[in-house]
Amino acid sequence: MRALNVTAPWGPDAIQVVEVPEPTPGPGQVLVRMKACSLNYRDFLMIHGMYGRAAASATDIITPFSDGCGYVEAVGPGVTRFKAGDRVSTLFFQNWVSGPPTLEKLSSALGFPIPGAGAELQVFSQEGLSKVPDFLTDHEVATLPCAALTAWRGLFHDARLEPGDTVVLQGTGGVSIFGLQFAKAAGYRTLITSSSDAKLERAKALGADHLVNYKTTPAWSKPVREATGGRGADFIMEVGGGGTIQESMKAIKIGGHIAVIGIVAGAGEPFNPAALIGNSAKLQGLSVGSRDMFESMCRAIELHGVRPVVDKVYPWTEAKAAIAAMGGGEHFGKIVLEF
Amino acid sequence: MRALNVTAPWGPDAIQVVEVPEPTPGPGQVLVRMKACSLNYRDFLMIHGMYGRAAASATDIITPFSDGCGYVEAVGPGVTRFKAGDRVSTLFFQNWVSGPPTLEKLSSALGFPIPGAGAELQVFSQEGLSKVPDFLTDHEVATLPCAALTAWRGLFHDARLEPGDTVVLQGTGGVSIFGLQFAKAAGYRTLITSSSDAKLERAKALGADHLVNYKTTPAWSKPVREATGGRGADFIMEVGGGGTIQESMKAIKIGGHIAVIGIVAGAGEPFNPAALIGNSAKLQGLSVGSRDMFESMCRAIELHGVRPVVDKVYPWTEAKAAIAAMGGGEHFGKIVLEF
Amino acid sequence: MRALNVTAPWGPDAIQVVEVPEPTPGPGQVLVRMKACSLNYRDFLMIHGMYGRAAASATDIITPFSDGCGYVEAVGPGVTRFKAGDRVSTLFFQNWVSGPPTLEKLSSALGFPIPGAGAELQVFSQEGLSKVPDFLTDHEVATLPCAALTAWRGLFHDARLEPGDTVVLQGTGGVSIFGLQFAKAAGYRTLITSSSDAKLERAKALGADHLVNYKTTPAWSKPVREATGGRGADFIMEVGGGGTIQESMKAIKIGGHIAVIGIVAGAGEPFNPAALIGNSAKLQGLSVGSRDMFESMCRAIELHGVRPVVDKVYPWTEAKAAIAAMGGGEHFGKIVLEF
Amino acid sequence: MRALNVTAPWGPDAIQVVEVPEPTPGPGQVLVRMKACSLNYRDFLMIHGMYGRAAASATDIITPFSDGCGYVEAVGPGVTRFKAGDRVSTLFFQNWVSGPPTLEKLSSALGFPIPGAGAELQVFSQEGLSKVPDFLTDHEVATLPCAALTAWRGLFHDARLEPGDTVVLQGTGGVSIFGLQFAKAAGYRTLITSSSDAKLERAKALGADHLVNYKTTPAWSKPVREATGGRGADFIMEVGGGGTIQESMKAIKIGGHIAVIGIVAGAGEPFNPAALIGNSAKLQGLSVGSRDMFESMCRAIELHGVRPVVDKVYPWTEAKAAIAAMGGGEHFGKIVLEF
Repeated sequence: MRALNVTAPWGPDAIQVVEVPEPTPGPGQVLVRMKACSLNYRDFLMIHGMYGRAAASATDIITPFSDGCGYVEAVGPGVTRFKAGDRVSTLFFQNWVSGPPTLEKLSSALGFPIPGAGAELQVFSQEGLSKVPDFLTDHEVATLPCAALTAWRGLFHDARLEPGDTVVLQGTGGVSIFGLQFAKAAGYRTLITSSSDAKLERAKALGADHLVNYKTTPAWSKPVREATGGRGADFIMEVGGGGTIQESMKAIKIGGHIAVIGIVAGAGEPFNPAALIGNSAKLQGLSVGSRDMFESMCRAIELHGVRPVVDKVYPWTEAKAAIAAMGGGEHFGKIVLEF
Repeated sequence: MRALNVTAPWGPDAIQVVEVPEPTPGPGQVLVRMKACSLNYRDFLMIHGMYGRAAASATDIITPFSDGCGYVEAVGPGVTRFKAGDRVSTLFFQNWVSGPPTLEKLSSALGFPIPGAGAELQVFSQEGLSKVPDFLTDHEVATLPCAALTAWRGLFHDARLEPGDTVVLQGTGGVSIFGLQFAKAAGYRTLITSSSDAKLERAKALGADHLVNYKTTPAWSKPVREATGGRGADFIMEVGGGGTIQESMKAIKIGGHIAVIGIVAGAGEPFNPAALIGNSAKLQGLSVGSRDMFESMCRAIELHGVRPVVDKVYPWTEAKAAIAAMGGGEHFGKIVLEF
Repeated sequence: MRALNVTAPWGPDAIQVVEVPEPTPGPGQVLVRMKACSLNYRDFLMIHGMYGRAAASATDIITPFSDGCGYVEAVGPGVTRFKAGDRVSTLFFQNWVSGPPTLEKLSSALGFPIPGAGAELQVFSQEGLSKVPDFLTDHEVATLPCAALTAWRGLFHDARLEPGDTVVLQGTGGVSIFGLQFAKAAGYRTLITSSSDAKLERAKALGADHLVNYKTTPAWSKPVREATGGRGADFIMEVGGGGTIQESMKAIKIGGHIAVIGIVAGAGEPFNPAALIGNSAKLQGLSVGSRDMFESMCRAIELHGVRPVVDKVYPWTEAKAAIAAMGGGEHFGKIVLEF
Repeated sequence: MRALNVTAPWGPDAIQVVEVPEPTPGPGQVLVRMKACSLNYRDFLMIHGMYGRAAASATDIITPFSDGCGYVEAVGPGVTRFKAGDRVSTLFFQNWVSGPPTLEKLSSALGFPIPGAGAELQVFSQEGLSKVPDFLTDHEVATLPCAALTAWRGLFHDARLEPGDTVVLQGTGGVSIFGLQFAKAAGYRTLITSSSDAKLERAKALGADHLVNYKTTPAWSKPVREATGGRGADFIMEVGGGGTIQESMKAIKIGGHIAVIGIVAGAGEPFNPAALIGNSAKLQGLSVGSRDMFESMCRAIELHGVRPVVDKVYPWTEAKAAIAAMGGGEHFGKIVLEF
């Protein structure tokens, strides 16, 4: 069977299709025939040698991708959670079932260091897979493990909001679009930013209450203040990192919550944490979530019929082109590979 | 001008229309011309001498009603929150602005011991009134202070739920119907009980996901279990007291939250709190809420265009008939008096 | 080797010493040579056929006791958490590692349905054991799994208290004495009740700030009010069930927290949950806790040098007499069996 | 009578003793004869024109100091909280009684914009004063309003810790020393840093468990890791701002809480908030707290007999020298002015 491999030297060509032996499920393991994967910005960073410890392991061969949907082909001894034929989603952290994050739980990320979903067949621990709502397509399921769960945890687990509160989403990448959909399901007022009026229109169709083009309105904290009667946003999903945090600090309300989940806008200007003092604001870092959170999320997706936004689908053997598209940043929602 | 008076001997005739002198607003006070009041089960109890300390004060003359909508007629010295002409809602606890409840805050209930909204003109502390969304009618505004805020606090302040969680509402009185509307706004799955299929159909029109007639299905915990894949309800708004708590204990999930807000079903069988041990469940008592909570609620009402359900409107001089209707329990939503 | 067996017919003689084959650790399992067990009221109930599902399984043979201390004799394949020679404590719920309780987690109680620590040698899942602070004796370690963790969770996980807050402990059984010690470590003001002045003096030596003999002062809510300047207790560890809850309701402050953990005082008078409404109080049921909580507790025990109070030690072959002593209720702290 | 005045041009001479008319308490106001004030770093910044909006109001005359202890001389009409002769502490935010911070509450800081405690006689709203434990001296009382309450709120209101958790205090200024005392009272493990071994010895005498000289051990996150078995600190009281946050990020545990309360170490290197993502850490800004929090703090101070650490006492007319000492940073605990 074939799989994707990522190896140094890092760069666009670091990802390749290779022939590998078919795996066999051991005790507690499940063999899954993959149907789809989705890409995250993490995958772009990894392939370009900019993903922390992965970049350092320059002699490793990495099977990429945390996000996959497939069907159970066979189960190893002692497997109780699944049977052949079940459709499953991978989970980003293979060992984070419940409770708060720990080093052990956060060291079990799929795609690195644990071999990922980028293969025709892959074995997973039964603890690292979940069933998902039937109404979703395989492509849609593949979008959930990382981006959707990050948005879900940020909104509902770390923060504490009420219907009518105002949530700011930055840009139209995977996490932000899921954030928009979940925030609407939860009855929050939503404001989304983008550099493209066309993308803003698409966000409006998904239910965004307020649209801000940050190219034409770089001081986007101003419309946030206007939309909230001067109070400021209750919650900001901060995906830009150093490049957007200064404006987020102007947009957040007293006592507000900024979920720090990404760095796509680069390091930006130095940030002095003292800025938090005057308004009792909070920066809460987070990275994906637990299986418990994933299952809660799926219950909400089912009740609300949330359809993940799939931007474009590539054959899995064209992963290189898909990664390039991810880097280009033109997508709205999620980029998917299909097997 | 005229006002309502409640005095012993308790009973249906304990409420009467009387002529009283026109009040004048003192420092920090606001004179309001009332347009509407709404009734709560508390008012029924009070008039029948079953409302705690009020019943004991048999020589007092009580101006009844916590819930009112009116227009500012004049303001006393030092008033900054309102000006003549503003439309206002009363607040149930006149001194509970912010933070957790205290004896001092809970001792400031309107209608008793503080003279209530049942008068053509009434003075209030400026701290005990709030502005409300423009789109609501005066009748609708008058329904908010007690029932709506009780449902709001129970769902969003004391509990911690996520979209997709399941909420059970008992019956179709004021609190339960607001609870249904707010739970829908927040993206929860809702199950409502009633003794009347006709009322259940009305609840369905308001968005209830599951309907249970507790006359034909007294063991209503069973459909709750079915609606939740066996897990049980995440939240139950317990309005019945001793008469329903036993079934609520069977319906609640492990670690679930039961908001205890009413006693309309009577004392019922003895309840052994040990029943809570096995499933880590929680009974959280509550009674209305703070001005901060009221203002959060109004933001949600505005965003979602929530229209309070007004059951029937009586002239305020027919308060006696309105109270009798409250006791009859045939209403769906709120009973309103208009001036 | 020998083990204890519990079988119907229920009663004092339901517990017996029997000869059984030596167990072997399977994959992920650990073989432990037991050094000590401690008793809980649950064990008394179980042997007398009053412990829920255990009582119903009248044909089962139960190896009793959730609480044990021992040394690892051997480990099965794949065991990573322990090696031969390690001292370990059992965990009450063998599958509750982290996060909130679930049916699956709560169905893994040691002693029933999972064979317990009442045997010279026993096998456990490696997930169901923990290391413990070195300074504790084996007898002391054996007291931790159930009573100590129940007190810990009640005080620190479900409730939210601050130094200077007032905590009420009922009686001088295992949970209450641990509650006293932990509450002192956390800087809370403590009030403890007992029917014995001698026991109250022992509690004072452990740091209790206020002592109430509930025989001579049945209305113990009065001294609670006095000790708190009229405010009432912030937290009550309710071990009595129906027999004490009425007085707890009078003693609790507005917005206070009552942890419901036991039923030693019997069903008592009917309790109307409506009593919770007026003062926004909360009844939170709980039963022991997770491994995460156990490990947090051990860190505090180590920092504070908390020494569990061992009431009396019996040879394990005299479990029958020890159980009888538990039923007698004369103990102060924990009753221990030694191997 | 005499008072202190702060006016531009900013600098050491911006603070002066002047003769002013005696004030009279209006409705709801209390006239207080001041006995002591304490200094905060904020006062140093203000006098040197580096305190935000105060610096901008270059034409204002400011009566400085948020922190004072005095005796009620007279009360205005409608005052119910105090009577002549009562000893009182000022509150930092005169309008923040309860609940979460808001713009209105945070705009009521004493010393600026509201005239402060630096006068022989001053009038305050009755809402802006509190009674305090009798056992404290007037000097000690004067240390509580800002530094003590900041430490209290950071530890107990925003964070959620358990006994045995590890708390890091930076330096030996007022907030950190109160933080140390409160953390000990709450049963936390404490680690304190200082540039002076002599100060570390004084901290040890107050109960610090671990001492780190950051001059000789600039990488102080290393001893934090060692003290916590590698886990990292559960809580860090970040007083240094940009100059210490980088090391705090290395010292904090996964999911840990960093309370951001000061900027004494300057802006330092740029901080990229993305550093929070990998370990789910949180930066929570805060500035002092509410009257509710102050009263909780006083209950703990009373129970534990916490004695505030007074570094040096100056006559109030030598405020200039006291401010210079504050700038020098040689103090341990609080600098006090006496009247």
